[in-house]
Amino acid sequence: MTRPLTLDPDRLFPAETRTRAIARDLYSTIAGLPIISPHGHTDAGWFAHNRNWTSATELFLAPDHYVYRMLYSQGIALADLGVPDRNGTPPHDPRRAWRIFADHYYLFRGTPSRMWLDHVFANVFGLDVALDSGTADQYFDRIGEQLASEAFRPRALFDRFNIGFLATTEGPQDDLSAHHAVQASGWGGRVVTTYRPDAVIDVEHEAFRPAMDRFAEVTGEDVWSWRGYLAAHRKRRADFRAAGATATDHGHITAQTANLTPAEAEALFDRVTRGEWVAADAELFRAQMLTEMAAMSIEDGMVMQIHPGVDRNHNHGLFTSHGRDKGADIPLRTDYVRALRPLLDRFGTLTELLIILFTLDESTYARELAPLAGHYPCLKLGPAWWFHDSPEGMRRFREMTTETAGFYNTVGFNDDTRAFLSIPARHDVARRVDCAFLARLVAEGRLQDWEAADLAYELTNGLVKRAYRIDAGDRSPERVAA
Amino acid sequence: MTRPLTLDPDRLFPAETRTRAIARDLYSTIAGLPIISPHGHTDAGWFAHNRNWTSATELFLAPDHYVYRMLYSQGIALADLGVPDRNGTPPHDPRRAWRIFADHYYLFRGTPSRMWLDHVFANVFGLDVALDSGTADQYFDRIGEQLASEAFRPRALFDRFNIGFLATTEGPQDDLSAHHAVQASGWGGRVVTTYRPDAVIDVEHEAFRPAMDRFAEVTGEDVWSWRGYLAAHRKRRADFRAAGATATDHGHITAQTANLTPAEAEALFDRVTRGEWVAADAELFRAQMLTEMAAMSIEDGMVMQIHPGVDRNHNHGLFTSHGRDKGADIPLRTDYVRALRPLLDRFGTLTELLIILFTLDESTYARELAPLAGHYPCLKLGPAWWFHDSPEGMRRFREMTTETAGFYNTVGFNDDTRAFLSIPARHDVARRVDCAFLARLVAEGRLQDWEAADLAYELTNGLVKRAYRIDAGDRSPERVAA
Amino acid sequence: MTRPLTLDPDRLFPAETRTRAIARDLYSTIAGLPIISPHGHTDAGWFAHNRNWTSATELFLAPDHYVYRMLYSQGIALADLGVPDRNGTPPHDPRRAWRIFADHYYLFRGTPSRMWLDHVFANVFGLDVALDSGTADQYFDRIGEQLASEAFRPRALFDRFNIGFLATTEGPQDDLSAHHAVQASGWGGRVVTTYRPDAVIDVEHEAFRPAMDRFAEVTGEDVWSWRGYLAAHRKRRADFRAAGATATDHGHITAQTANLTPAEAEALFDRVTRGEWVAADAELFRAQMLTEMAAMSIEDGMVMQIHPGVDRNHNHGLFTSHGRDKGADIPLRTDYVRALRPLLDRFGTLTELLIILFTLDESTYARELAPLAGHYPCLKLGPAWWFHDSPEGMRRFREMTTETAGFYNTVGFNDDTRAFLSIPARHDVARRVDCAFLARLVAEGRLQDWEAADLAYELTNGLVKRAYRIDAGDRSPERVAA
Repeated sequence: MTRPLTLDPDRLFPAETRTRAIARDLYSTIAGLPIISPHGHTDAGWFAHNRNWTSATELFLAPDHYVYRMLYSQGIALADLGVPDRNGTPPHDPRRAWRIFADHYYLFRGTPSRMWLDHVFANVFGLDVALDSGTADQYFDRIGEQLASEAFRPRALFDRFNIGFLATTEGPQDDLSAHHAVQASGWGGRVVTTYRPDAVIDVEHEAFRPAMDRFAEVTGEDVWSWRGYLAAHRKRRADFRAAGATATDHGHITAQTANLTPAEAEALFDRVTRGEWVAADAELFRAQMLTEMAAMSIEDGMVMQIHPGVDRNHNHGLFTSHGRDKGADIPLRTDYVRALRPLLDRFGTLTELLIILFTLDESTYARELAPLAGHYPCLKLGPAWWFHDSPEGMRRFREMTTETAGFYNTVGFNDDTRAFLSIPARHDVARRVDCAFLARLVAEGRLQDWEAADLAYELTNGLVKRAYRIDAGDRSPERVAA
Repeated sequence: MTRPLTLDPDRLFPAETRTRAIARDLYSTIAGLPIISPHGHTDAGWFAHNRNWTSATELFLAPDHYVYRMLYSQGIALADLGVPDRNGTPPHDPRRAWRIFADHYYLFRGTPSRMWLDHVFANVFGLDVALDSGTADQYFDRIGEQLASEAFRPRALFDRFNIGFLATTEGPQDDLSAHHAVQASGWGGRVVTTYRPDAVIDVEHEAFRPAMDRFAEVTGEDVWSWRGYLAAHRKRRADFRAAGATATDHGHITAQTANLTPAEAEALFDRVTRGEWVAADAELFRAQMLTEMAAMSIEDGMVMQIHPGVDRNHNHGLFTSHGRDKGADIPLRTDYVRALRPLLDRFGTLTELLIILFTLDESTYARELAPLAGHYPCLKLGPAWWFHDSPEGMRRFREMTTETAGFYNTVGFNDDTRAFLSIPARHDVARRVDCAFLARLVAEGRLQDWEAADLAYELTNGLVKRAYRIDAGDRSPERVAA
Repeated sequence: MTRPLTLDPDRLFPAETRTRAIARDLYSTIAGLPIISPHGHTDAGWFAHNRNWTSATELFLAPDHYVYRMLYSQGIALADLGVPDRNGTPPHDPRRAWRIFADHYYLFRGTPSRMWLDHVFANVFGLDVALDSGTADQYFDRIGEQLASEAFRPRALFDRFNIGFLATTEGPQDDLSAHHAVQASGWGGRVVTTYRPDAVIDVEHEAFRPAMDRFAEVTGEDVWSWRGYLAAHRKRRADFRAAGATATDHGHITAQTANLTPAEAEALFDRVTRGEWVAADAELFRAQMLTEMAAMSIEDGMVMQIHPGVDRNHNHGLFTSHGRDKGADIPLRTDYVRALRPLLDRFGTLTELLIILFTLDESTYARELAPLAGHYPCLKLGPAWWFHDSPEGMRRFREMTTETAGFYNTVGFNDDTRAFLSIPARHDVARRVDCAFLARLVAEGRLQDWEAADLAYELTNGLVKRAYRIDAGDRSPERVAA
């Protein structure tokens, strides 16, 4: 039997009548604001080349680890879904893969993926029946047809989604040609890069050496000397700035920082680049490089993002057959208090530096992160991340950080996604959850309604733009209130 | 003044009117389903011999560490409650013990024990006044009278409780005679065993040597050689399978696993069985045995349960006077990500193996367990356990695991109890809390009502039966939906 | 535009109508009870000398690290707020500082500071417009005028606030002259001290040696010998008892305890007092002293409070310029299970001893603290502390501890504040949040209304008085119920 697909206009608002009315009113004031997406992993090439996507499978299934990790967890082979392995994309039938997905769509009940996908199906593709085994083909055909049209090319969707700012993420070895092409195209969409140097910082990464070679090539510097290596970073940061970047990003296994003397740092660099290191050296080098990056951020004004605490590629068998980023990354308990101290000993009292901290260890929200951000001028809290980018996860983030860090030491929402079509859905979920939280504070007499309206704007646009230094002249909350 | 004892028919449902109505409707569809109890610690002898219990004290007080730990925490001596010490059950007056309990029944306000007990008092014994000092004797007499009747023998209650499946837990040194007697009796109740080999795996356990001697006796194997020891496990697993077991259970202090070569494993075995070990060897042997048990589960199809993370017998004085299992077990911070890696490196990509993970460290729900179960085909999440088998604990479990692992990587409810009479009460609490959670998702537009009804069935019966491999032909969710 | 300042009479109660009505009824029965403040950091000198405070800045801004840490986190210099540095209070204009605070008052939205301050502004000073840039001067003047009046002297406010008991905290080197002056004054307010010996126990504290010298002076004992040191503690504990103290307090970096032999303890003492120690010795000495203090508590009946788990003075630059206690203390992950074991091995089964445990690591509530307090007769749980003394923090405390420890292993509320004027506001928040929690239990059929009323009294006064041994003859819950 075919079920209708409908999106509840009050979804994610609390059920209690009065609180729901407040949430709905707040949401109505911000639902139409442009999307500011300061951190994510979309492909700049989409906007450079503006080519049509081909099928629902290519768009929703094969690239989205949120989706295929769940299917894999229930015993479905990745090959059947068109997920590439180390030999490339396996032979598969996109329609058959889609049918397998549809047969198992019930597995996503209660997950954010389900909310995002239904939002895209209904609002982007105009589908009005629920996805299941019986409607799989209808979905596949309808989505395929639309994807082939002019209106569904990347730039058209970017405009339709009302995206005001979209940051991608590139490594220092990237030539940024896609970004240059976007900028040269005359199209008005604001797509910028982010400097993510992990591949030339993490000596344990299997691609460290080729990345370094490419880093040398792109910069013309002697990257195998400490001095040349730092100069190469400075050069590339300037290139990224010129291509619009306002931020750097650092995905380390821990949040450890270090504060070595220049001589110690150079000796460590020599050791790790000669391959004469043990795990502790690799960790110390990553730690020292966070501090070096902070020093460069003070020079050039780039905001630093730290995304620590993931055990990457935990599934050894899958890593062997399929390589990295296959949905097998598992969060780790993460310390911030002692880990950040060396960097903070050096730069902690400065107001020019801005570091945005993320976590996958929610036990640190109230214990470590809110107290740190509620004290240090250079620290702010990134939003609920990855596994926690979900209604319950976002609610816990607000409940556990606001009382100590306030709202103003947070930076609004990040979609952090490769799934371009889900961007409006993800921002919509965040806006609704924030309005629900604010509505509760109003209903419980903890906040005035006009303050909540002011904050709804701040969480959606104001704080994001200021934290990521996107617009200089953004209005301040006082001016909103006046 | 005597207070009435009443159970609110809407207990544990959210107060908000619309959500409550949804929860009530969901609950009505599953309230009458049979109880599937795949993990617990009742005594198979009760059902083998079908003897009457004697008194309220013997039934509710002396064996229930949830109850007497709270009384002990407020300064009441265990001897006064009839709790056995190392010399056996101390001389005590059961009626006086019951009066002490009644005098202090207010201590249980806000605890699940209070909800379970009131449920039993009202629904099993038909009591209609609240327990306090003034009604203690009335309770003691009324319960005693009924316990002496035919209708309150173990098998009669089993049938009255509508229990469809009940697993007990025995060690490899147990001869399973009680189970054989149940099966030979012609009574239709399905009572099966579970293979719990901790006593012959944990060399730090004070009863390791006698358990090993008994293990040798029961199996006729040379259990002091590595080869004979493994053969003995295989034999006993087969015996347990023959007695209906579908699962094993492992209560280790950590979740650590190991992946030694056969030669290393044998050398380690020789070291620990000769008594030439330090604590790290004992831990490594337990770790290796989890991996060995997983290998045998792949052979024989038994589901593995891992219950880690408890510091047993924390109260040294009480352990000295009273021995183990006296309400002095305290949870420990527990790591899963690194601990499980050796086992997963070996078997992680298999779909034949099923390991059900439990925890007493709720900080791992969202950070470690849901990401692991939401990826690995061989891992699923056991329900909120022990201290967390409570309304708030179960709610946190759903809120912190569902968004990443979904509902379908969980396995329904375990009562895990020695308190036979509380089984219906415990399952009722779980069903209500799950319906309350589902109702919130429906009320907030995150799930359709028909999906919630489907899930209510799954969480109560469907997922349990499939995870524990109880019925082969159980209906799948798709067929439910159709 | 000027906004009104109003306090919602139903603030902090759940929005749902029926639950709110229950909460409101419960609150009405306890709102007028006297304030029992068994732990805090007000200055006994205020009540001894009864001098007027001078300005809003001196009262609210300069001494309150909750307030200036938030302003500092947003780049405001402490000097501009009149916060003292190592050279004393910097030259500043109190009115200008107040204006800066008013300009940034929006930063406190969603924080408990905002609730406390608004409560004080409205209820103590009768202000009826919200604080912002436009009303800063009006506030400064109005508060300043009232502070100069007779009715706003410390003793008058103490009486007006209906404070029944107020404990301050002093070190063993303090001569308690302020307390003696209060007692000699004939004023009826009950202000007592608490024995906090950290400065003579923590050899890593920069003031250890001067504190020890003063300790020797005040006691006339040879505090540099182990025997004399213990005798000095005994003497001072007796002095503190004579000045009304019922409790000791211990603010260690961890909860570690030790159980050394007398000879080992003496050798350790000699090592650390001779300055021949490494960090592990300092930690072991603190650990052993917790056990020694417990032994003395058994002798003299003082209740022990342990406040562990803070990395003090985390901001190195700020510590260098401004010294300690400047809002830069950050919580640490804290272990209790293994840390407390040595002390509990020695005293764990006693019912004479009472230790109240606090934490800043909420992940221990359900995992460690509730199981410990729900078992050991000598352990109880202090309320949500410091960063968690907030509506969400208190709610989490109840949700995560009640089901295992019950209500009766907790001890009511502590305001733990230096901000005397905020005391009624803080107790009011705690009472409201507790009534909201109890109301939810009633609305969900988990507790009877008369039990909730009984508990509301217990959480406000009964449990506090019994735990801190304030009144001998306090009514028991049974008598309440009768």
